[in-house]
Amino acid sequence: MRAWQFTEVGEPLSLREVPAPTPTAGEIVVQVRAAGLCHSDIGFLDGTLTPLLPFRPITLGHEIAGIVATVGANVEEFEVGQQVVIPAAIEGPGTSMDGGFADFVAVPARLVVPMPDGVPFDQAAAATDAGLTSYHAVAIQGQVGAGTRVAVVGLGGLGSVGAQIALALGATVHVAEKNERVHDFARSLGVDAVVSDINDLRDLEFDVVVDFAGFGTTTDGAIHAVRRGGRVILVGLGLARAEIDLQALTLNEVELIGSQAGTKEDCAAVLELVAARRIASRITAIGFEDIGDGIGKLERGEVVGRLVATFG
Amino acid sequence: MRAWQFTEVGEPLSLREVPAPTPTAGEIVVQVRAAGLCHSDIGFLDGTLTPLLPFRPITLGHEIAGIVATVGANVEEFEVGQQVVIPAAIEGPGTSMDGGFADFVAVPARLVVPMPDGVPFDQAAAATDAGLTSYHAVAIQGQVGAGTRVAVVGLGGLGSVGAQIALALGATVHVAEKNERVHDFARSLGVDAVVSDINDLRDLEFDVVVDFAGFGTTTDGAIHAVRRGGRVILVGLGLARAEIDLQALTLNEVELIGSQAGTKEDCAAVLELVAARRIASRITAIGFEDIGDGIGKLERGEVVGRLVATFG
Repeated sequence: MRAWQFTEVGEPLSLREVPAPTPTAGEIVVQVRAAGLCHSDIGFLDGTLTPLLPFRPITLGHEIAGIVATVGANVEEFEVGQQVVIPAAIEGPGTSMDGGFADFVAVPARLVVPMPDGVPFDQAAAATDAGLTSYHAVAIQGQVGAGTRVAVVGLGGLGSVGAQIALALGATVHVAEKNERVHDFARSLGVDAVVSDINDLRDLEFDVVVDFAGFGTTTDGAIHAVRRGGRVILVGLGLARAEIDLQALTLNEVELIGSQAGTKEDCAAVLELVAARRIASRITAIGFEDIGDGIGKLERGEVVGRLVATFG
Repeated sequence: MRAWQFTEVGEPLSLREVPAPTPTAGEIVVQVRAAGLCHSDIGFLDGTLTPLLPFRPITLGHEIAGIVATVGANVEEFEVGQQVVIPAAIEGPGTSMDGGFADFVAVPARLVVPMPDGVPFDQAAAATDAGLTSYHAVAIQGQVGAGTRVAVVGLGGLGSVGAQIALALGATVHVAEKNERVHDFARSLGVDAVVSDINDLRDLEFDVVVDFAGFGTTTDGAIHAVRRGGRVILVGLGLARAEIDLQALTLNEVELIGSQAGTKEDCAAVLELVAARRIASRITAIGFEDIGDGIGKLERGEVVGRLVATFG
């Protein structure tokens, strides 16, 4: 089968022919129908997140939706032909084992979630990471609810879903996004205001700022944009280390809270919101053969919304 | 009356003769009997915290215990001769108005707390800031309780009380303190272990690390010393800005939470613990005339425990 694999820091993904997987006990093999490209994939390639990978070459791709192709021993909860998603997880495909930039992927059944009816594969793939991660950041770590005053930093694949989730939960939402080409899109979501830089929102005393960028300056700006005792939820992994204003954090009792991926329950909650047409990822669809080039487009900031390869 | 005043960044406190205050409506004037010297006072002098001061020259001193000398109009809850403390507060004496390094201090009555019986003035003064701030950090922001695994970074005036409060709440406590001369003192408190650097405790996965130093490296070390989802409470104002590991914070969903001073209720809770002999500040006592030199000793790290001037 075909697989896009990572070998060395600084090298692009390479398309290879590899053996199709067979399921061991407790695993299923999924025929991949959609696989999302993620900013984390850039981190795996450029050295920032590379230490997380347990071996190389490794097939990347951790936002996966598809159809159960084979079921291993001791798996009772899934059957061949069923539509499923694999929520992005540190211990899952594309991070700790070969991933979904391939025709087939083997995965422990305990990591898999059934797809509700009426959800397209590309939206389901986006929900496994952009949706899941955004929901976890906004609803769980951020405790956003009706009337919460929220600012969303970064309106890429994650942030645009995060803003919709906050709105669906009844929050008022401001957006800070440096790419002014997506400002009209931001306004179309129904947010209160759109600016280029979170530092332009310093005096607005938000209850919660969700930083989907994580470029240091955004986190520092977020610390100054929340009210006393407010929460800054850090999702983006833009910079591994950065300088922040510890004095402001202390004096205003700000809570800076990391948010990483989410649970199967978060994923199921997001898929229900997608099925109910309450949220939708803005998707740029590409073919399987375009995955290598797609990483470069993502890195150069040329993609609006979520980049998803559909195939199979 | 005598007053130690701050005038310019880089200049030491100067002892001046100034008019004694008279209370306006809603205020009382307290004859100061004990005033604690605090690391924040160094920050006021060296430029780090100077922007917080509303005017100069200003009398510093924000850890105050004494006796009510005069009562202004519309004050019903206090009477002349009563023993009181003034909890350290941004809006209080020594920060937003003339403070307690003086024979008398005027203060809004709403900021004042009665002293329980059996508490010496020096212990009461320490409780207004070291105690109050430590209690707020450990019990309120840190949510420390029975069985919580806690590490305390920095065993100065704040940290030594913080460690005692954590122990009084039923936690197990490790201490990281670079000044090895106080390690024996740390052990005498009943803590589990004492090391020089929080980075030596990286793998111990504490529930809570309370950073009373705030020197950047300590906060960064604390982020690596807590378990997934653990809390780092930042109290110390050692550095205004510092680089921290945002990636580790995000991937481990660490909560970095600022803690600043505390409430009147926190202060009352601490005074009850002091009166019940559950906690005590280790105090180095000096006279009024030694306050200027005392700041220098504090800055050079020559003080064990809390430095308190007693007079009047």
